[in-house]
Amino acid sequence: MSDISAYMRDVGEQARKASRLVAAATTSQKNHALLAMADAIEQSREQLQKANEQDLQAGQAKGLDAAMLDRLALTPARIDGMIEGLRQVAALQDPVGEITDMRYRPSGIQVGKMRVPLGVIGIIYESRPNVTCEAASLCLKSGNAAILRGGSEALHSNQAIADCIRQGLASAGLSKHAVQVIETTDRAAVGLLITMPEYVDVIVPRGGKGLIERISAESRVPVIKHLDGNCHVYIDDQADAEKAIRVTVNAKTQRYGTCNTLESLLVAQSRAAEILPLLHQALAAHQIEYRACPTAMALLPGAKAATEQDWGEEYLAPVMSVKVVESIDQAIEHINKFSSGHTESIITESFHRAQRFLREIDSSSVMVNASTRFADGFEYGLGAEIGISTDKLHARGPVGLEGLTSQKYIVLGDGHIRT
Amino acid sequence: MSDISAYMRDVGEQARKASRLVAAATTSQKNHALLAMADAIEQSREQLQKANEQDLQAGQAKGLDAAMLDRLALTPARIDGMIEGLRQVAALQDPVGEITDMRYRPSGIQVGKMRVPLGVIGIIYESRPNVTCEAASLCLKSGNAAILRGGSEALHSNQAIADCIRQGLASAGLSKHAVQVIETTDRAAVGLLITMPEYVDVIVPRGGKGLIERISAESRVPVIKHLDGNCHVYIDDQADAEKAIRVTVNAKTQRYGTCNTLESLLVAQSRAAEILPLLHQALAAHQIEYRACPTAMALLPGAKAATEQDWGEEYLAPVMSVKVVESIDQAIEHINKFSSGHTESIITESFHRAQRFLREIDSSSVMVNASTRFADGFEYGLGAEIGISTDKLHARGPVGLEGLTSQKYIVLGDGHIRT
Repeated sequence: MSDISAYMRDVGEQARKASRLVAAATTSQKNHALLAMADAIEQSREQLQKANEQDLQAGQAKGLDAAMLDRLALTPARIDGMIEGLRQVAALQDPVGEITDMRYRPSGIQVGKMRVPLGVIGIIYESRPNVTCEAASLCLKSGNAAILRGGSEALHSNQAIADCIRQGLASAGLSKHAVQVIETTDRAAVGLLITMPEYVDVIVPRGGKGLIERISAESRVPVIKHLDGNCHVYIDDQADAEKAIRVTVNAKTQRYGTCNTLESLLVAQSRAAEILPLLHQALAAHQIEYRACPTAMALLPGAKAATEQDWGEEYLAPVMSVKVVESIDQAIEHINKFSSGHTESIITESFHRAQRFLREIDSSSVMVNASTRFADGFEYGLGAEIGISTDKLHARGPVGLEGLTSQKYIVLGDGHIRT
Repeated sequence: MSDISAYMRDVGEQARKASRLVAAATTSQKNHALLAMADAIEQSREQLQKANEQDLQAGQAKGLDAAMLDRLALTPARIDGMIEGLRQVAALQDPVGEITDMRYRPSGIQVGKMRVPLGVIGIIYESRPNVTCEAASLCLKSGNAAILRGGSEALHSNQAIADCIRQGLASAGLSKHAVQVIETTDRAAVGLLITMPEYVDVIVPRGGKGLIERISAESRVPVIKHLDGNCHVYIDDQADAEKAIRVTVNAKTQRYGTCNTLESLLVAQSRAAEILPLLHQALAAHQIEYRACPTAMALLPGAKAATEQDWGEEYLAPVMSVKVVESIDQAIEHINKFSSGHTESIITESFHRAQRFLREIDSSSVMVNASTRFADGFEYGLGAEIGISTDKLHARGPVGLEGLTSQKYIVLGDGHIRT
């Protein structure tokens, strides 16, 4: 590509134009496109796997590690997943055009809100090619145009998926620019994408912390971002021990590498001597490494001393920090200081404590007597998610179709004027 | 002030701490503080006017123009306005803690949303000292801590108002850091305020376009911003002529200097020869200057030829651009291209046309048969507004208490785990 800057401006301009068309597309047109994409992928399994093979070979030659190669692979099961995902998004309710809060005002006008697409969404992601399909489907269903920039190591796979997406758009009579997949591995493309506020309304980065921090710092377009998930469980002095242990074990061990995994456990002082040994027993099979405060250390065999840094850490591994706290006040203060604002859960039988925790914890998901692992778009009933936002403006927590829209005011009159 | 950077960090840190306390404050505590502020202002009329006199004299000496001095003046009527405003905000419903959409999920958990404050809001404004009071009241009622940075020319007035605000906070037992008014005119304070994302969650600039553009470009904190109001009225070929003229005259002439004033009129071709001469007659007393397309020029005596720039202009004056369009399609395309995304109105008796306009116009307020002048927090029933957002993320249009909050997810279980 000779002039990356001209190429990206062209992509932006086309996306802006297409965004008007997609915003006005009917629900059945959008669903038709999504189902046609699913069919195109079904019929292109061979081409997809061939393109993916190219990427995998290049990746091996470049010395990518096993985990990266695994994320890059388009296995038959993952292709099934893309097809299923497209059909699920087609089945979701269309958020666009929903009208709420219509009320007559004393002046005689009727005022309410209409849900509308954001416009053009830029998505920047890393090695998983199936994200191309997921992101395209959510943007389209929510009436937005999408500019997708995947990892350079997945270029061939992404182009093959893009081909199926274009077939689906064409079959529904929608502009092929409604979903554009960047066709160059030039890194300058990202820098350009995040500095075109005239063409791009929001950026959603999906990937490692480094990528997201860099994009947030440099973007001139609003970013819906998800940084760490340093999730807490607080076992209150009025907790039911059995529920406390069940939830803690699930939150920590069901999966280690997810952002809603428990990373830091707080236990009320008056219950620590009872609950921590029971917990240790329940966790025995999982070989969890503890980083503990002095009181917890004495109760957890093999625990290491926690450093100040441990309280803010997202381990994504069989490691957990453990701290004994004096009261719910100290628990709330500790969480609001060290948490990344993702998900926290209190275990308590006290109505009053539950209410305080729900109100005072400043995180995108706050739970009572439930595993942090529930913080997920599917579990919350959003149908799908484009990511989990740890920001405070616009959308917090799992971002589904609604998070890719906003509300404008609509006013109905009959020749009304202001006096 | 010797070390402005240390001062601002201190302000930020105190605001962050205070924000936890204000977020947890009860509705009656917040209302008590607001009413006590109103009383304090009532009792400090003399001090306020003395402080304001100092600013006015300094302003005159500095050669501020008459319009600026007028904005700076704290007349008795404006003091009444501040008192009345505080009492009105106290009477508004508390948005914090509202729980919506609680539903059981197949897993057994209950999921819903709780409305919560944003945290710390930084407000940067220009000469009007009464904004200090307005901004403080809206931030406090919505459970946020506020850092207020007014114009340097209003420093004494703002400090005197700040004094009353602190009296109100103290009387309700709330931290004095819940509302902090910057005590220096050092311009570096603004640069620091907008680059402390660790202490400030959102910036609301209120003032001229220059101020807002500069802040948006340099801020590392999300900005709720309001740029121009280049508002349109489109008179459709199925318009009622009488309503069309009534609304157009009101939208253009009720006030010239407001952001929701009509700036650009579009008229369907088939109705131009009938409606434009009638409109000209109705506008005769107002001496409006027209900047028109060739067709409209021929129908509007004294009209000047519009340049391309006129279509994007916010005149804030008795000037209006006028364009004859072929169809509603051309009207929608023109508006979406040239509008600043503030407010647009269609005049039509056609249900179909009204529906299309409502859906396809990408502005924060879209109206049918109503004057653009209605785009206002009070008219919409928000009770008050901190500004009008022309952004697309988070809040669009008039931003009231709800726009100063967001929603977190809450999850209720009884020991539920994910399987």
